[in-house]
Amino acid sequence: MSIDILEHFGKFTEQWSPRIVGELNGQYVKLARLQGELVWHSHENEDELFMVFKGTLILEMRDKTVEVGEGEMYIVPKGVEHLPKTKNNEEVFCLLFEPKNTLHTGDVEHEKTNNDQEWL
Amino acid sequence: MSIDILEHFGKFTEQWSPRIVGELNGQYVKLARLQGELVWHSHENEDELFMVFKGTLILEMRDKTVEVGEGEMYIVPKGVEHLPKTKNNEEVFCLLFEPKNTLHTGDVEHEKTNNDQEWL
Repeated sequence: MSIDILEHFGKFTEQWSPRIVGELNGQYVKLARLQGELVWHSHENEDELFMVFKGTLILEMRDKTVEVGEGEMYIVPKGVEHLPKTKNNEEVFCLLFEPKNTLHTGDVEHEKTNNDQEWL
Repeated sequence: MSIDILEHFGKFTEQWSPRIVGELNGQYVKLARLQGELVWHSHENEDELFMVFKGTLILEMRDKTVEVGEGEMYIVPKGVEHLPKTKNNEEVFCLLFEPKNTLHTGDVEHEKTNNDQEWL
C-alpha cells in the first residue's frame, strides 16, 4: 500500500523524534515533527535531505541560512554544520532522507538527541 | 537555496524524461512528468521510490497493483517487475529517489527509455 505522507505525520506527536516510514538502498525515509531549535551539528559522512510538508524550516549554516518552506526541499552536504530550527517557533512537518546509520545530531550529544528512531 | 518542487515541475514539459534536481549519498532525486504507460521492467539492484505531487500513479506489479495519489509515496523493491502508468491517462508529477546508476527501464529497451537524464 502506498503511504499517505501527511496522514502519517498525524500518527505521532513527539517532536524531534524522527520516525522511519521507508527504506531503500541503505537509506531511510523518515518523518519528523519539529518545533523550536535542535543543536549545531554535522554528519561527517552523510548528506541529509529535508523536505517540508508543513510550516517553514530554517537551516542555519556557518556561511548562510536557508529557509525551506512547504513543498520545498534542501540537501545539507556531509560535513556541513547546520542548526535546524523552525520559523516563528511554529511546528514543522519534515521528511528526511538519509543513510540508515546517520546519527540524529552527528557526534554532538544534546538533550534532544534521539538515536532510537523507530518505524512508524 | 531550497528547491520549490512544484515550481520545478513547471520548468520542463517532456514526459517520461526524468530530470535530476538533487544528489545525495550516491542517489539522485529526480522529477518526472508522466502520462500513459511506460513498459514492464525491473531494476536488479536498485530500490526505487515514487512520490506523487499531482495526479495518481498506478504501479502494476505481477502480484498486485498500487495506486499512489497526490501526497503519497511507494517504494518498489529491487528485482520487482513493475509497470508505471497514470490513472485515467491524466498527467502525473512524480518525484523519484534512486541510485545514480539506475537505468530508466532496467534492462528493457523501449521507445520511451531515456537514460540521458540531465540536471534541471
